[in-house]
Amino acid sequence: MQSMALAVDKGSVELGPSLLGGVSLPAAVVHEGPLEHNLVWMQRFAEAHGARLAPHGKTTMTPALFHRQIQAGAWGITLATAPQCRAAFAHGITRLLMANQLVGQANMAIIASLIEQGATFYCVVDSQENVRQLGRFFAKRGLILPVLIEVGVPGGRCGCRTQQQILSLAGTIAEEPALSLAGLEGYEGVVHGADPEAGIRAYAKYLVDVAVELEAAKRFSEPEPIVTASGSAWYDLIAEAFEGAPLQGRFTAVLRPGCYVVHDHGLYRDAQSAVLARRPDLPDGLEPALEVFAQVQSLPEPGLAIIALGKRDIGHDQLPIALRRYRETGTPEQLLSVDGWEVTKIMDQHTFVRLPKEALDVEVGDIVAFGASHPCLTFDKWRQLLLVDNDLNVKEHLATYF
Amino acid sequence: MQSMALAVDKGSVELGPSLLGGVSLPAAVVHEGPLEHNLVWMQRFAEAHGARLAPHGKTTMTPALFHRQIQAGAWGITLATAPQCRAAFAHGITRLLMANQLVGQANMAIIASLIEQGATFYCVVDSQENVRQLGRFFAKRGLILPVLIEVGVPGGRCGCRTQQQILSLAGTIAEEPALSLAGLEGYEGVVHGADPEAGIRAYAKYLVDVAVELEAAKRFSEPEPIVTASGSAWYDLIAEAFEGAPLQGRFTAVLRPGCYVVHDHGLYRDAQSAVLARRPDLPDGLEPALEVFAQVQSLPEPGLAIIALGKRDIGHDQLPIALRRYRETGTPEQLLSVDGWEVTKIMDQHTFVRLPKEALDVEVGDIVAFGASHPCLTFDKWRQLLLVDNDLNVKEHLATYF
Repeated sequence: MQSMALAVDKGSVELGPSLLGGVSLPAAVVHEGPLEHNLVWMQRFAEAHGARLAPHGKTTMTPALFHRQIQAGAWGITLATAPQCRAAFAHGITRLLMANQLVGQANMAIIASLIEQGATFYCVVDSQENVRQLGRFFAKRGLILPVLIEVGVPGGRCGCRTQQQILSLAGTIAEEPALSLAGLEGYEGVVHGADPEAGIRAYAKYLVDVAVELEAAKRFSEPEPIVTASGSAWYDLIAEAFEGAPLQGRFTAVLRPGCYVVHDHGLYRDAQSAVLARRPDLPDGLEPALEVFAQVQSLPEPGLAIIALGKRDIGHDQLPIALRRYRETGTPEQLLSVDGWEVTKIMDQHTFVRLPKEALDVEVGDIVAFGASHPCLTFDKWRQLLLVDNDLNVKEHLATYF
Repeated sequence: MQSMALAVDKGSVELGPSLLGGVSLPAAVVHEGPLEHNLVWMQRFAEAHGARLAPHGKTTMTPALFHRQIQAGAWGITLATAPQCRAAFAHGITRLLMANQLVGQANMAIIASLIEQGATFYCVVDSQENVRQLGRFFAKRGLILPVLIEVGVPGGRCGCRTQQQILSLAGTIAEEPALSLAGLEGYEGVVHGADPEAGIRAYAKYLVDVAVELEAAKRFSEPEPIVTASGSAWYDLIAEAFEGAPLQGRFTAVLRPGCYVVHDHGLYRDAQSAVLARRPDLPDGLEPALEVFAQVQSLPEPGLAIIALGKRDIGHDQLPIALRRYRETGTPEQLLSVDGWEVTKIMDQHTFVRLPKEALDVEVGDIVAFGASHPCLTFDKWRQLLLVDNDLNVKEHLATYF
């Protein structure tokens, strides 16, 4: 922690025994109870469906959470970029799934160094050109790079658009001595259409079918090739498709949700409601664990509160939601009302709240806990977050490595 | 820099003599030539209008740029929060103008410590309650806190809504032995209406009139009280109002633009065009100095490029703009076309570009320089930026302290 001290300019002054240890606000808070619940919940979900879990680490980029995910049983950590992989490996994560194309000499050099240091690494490919680039680079380094072919959809993001492209790319990979085809990868989050559920089920089935076909053609270099997909919204449909007969015992099915670990108060709360509606057999769902605490800065007009909280402090794809309020001199038990509080606008350093007429007890300095959507874009605002217990005691400082 | 190494996970691997020194992309780049131009331009502008410059440091939170601003002649640095002030002071900035209310015991403690260490500090107040809180806190610490009354507008953000409130607040400040009333502060960026120019001129005049009235009533504790306003969009109107007779020689007029230092390719480019239209006498305007370099990751369909650049890398209040393209193996002179490239969407880690039909020479790995709006929300995505010369050689790593 010593080396972080200079870089941390938010939330690092503590005054003594009060709310969050009297930390400077705004501060981002992870609640330990819901965190532990979510860690166990998703691990059990994956295991119950015969899948491995490689949580997407880009959500938090918080090694202390990666370690908790591994301890809970995760098979590895998924990441989005080479520098993210380097950060995870530097903190002891040895199985890294980069769910993206590895592009650029410098990024390839980062990964080559990780493999030389003993990392088990996979990345995805979707073009002849990238396969040739990787083949040349890793041959020169005398290394073998395991790759997964990315299975895309027309109108989607990355990934091969047709089965013909996939088969052709598998052929090219076979021609590159420095590459090994370790499996298939997909991301159902970019499947759109009038009936997304049907579209995602069809996509997952397609992914499985192609995997089986490639295996029959002996295109994979590993005995139990990887088949992987799933974000945090539709993981149940992917798990169900992977659970089907063709994969079991012959493939390594890997789920990669990331946001589940702290869940949220927006996009993923809604997605989770949909999961539970589809799967009434599942035990009570994920719990939001991430909040940002901030203070009322100004009450300049009746019905208007300005909060010292901005785009630089909290995810704002959707407007944050006021959850609870405390008096600064109070205790965690002395909750004040935020009934009817409505966030109307967020600027770089300020949030506007419309207060209901009956909100007469609001004071400058009042502390408000906010929820947000989605977690990735809240975590990346902070160099550290506070892990707190039920009584809002700070138990640990969680350093991020964005 | 040693202590930063672990925290920096983007852009810190270098391969040797190539574009940007072969740095891992994406990377944020500040062009030295336009930067130096902007530093001088705005300093001259302020001086030509008889005003001091206290550039808003929240834009960059980059002490290496604060120092360049001070060396160019700035009077001080403006900041938005107590932790930002602490970071600036820790890097040798001794005159700090916090253009926000100082709220919360922990934040007050940060500022008290800076004052004890010799900082010249000002913050703003807009409520009786906050004045009483500050009075109590700083009295206990045996310190004097200089404050500026914030002059707001109905429907705006913080700040007193009426002259009566301002006069009343000045009276309350006079009752607090630990506070001294050092001037008035406003922010014209929250003035709205059918004719914003007229609204801002009227607001600036109001600010000056109230300052003169408070001075006549001997409400200020300093011989040349501060009158300050201005962001980076309407600074010319504020400067003209401050240049008027009543302030000269009796007040310290302070302008606080922040974004000017690197300018942008969106909001502030448009605002600057409006400034130059209002003020044809001004020499050629500000130049955009901040770009993010990223690579083509996938070309999955004709007419579609996916760039390894996301919301975590670049400001996205407006969609980024593709400015130039290079082949990874090329030189800064070997520019490739981005004519007709249109960014259509940005996700956490990916940007979608629609390519024109004739864009046949695009390759996976091509490096694209992107411009964005606005700079504050690009700077805060990075723990360091690269200062580069005209040939894209990296001259300095600029560490940020968000």
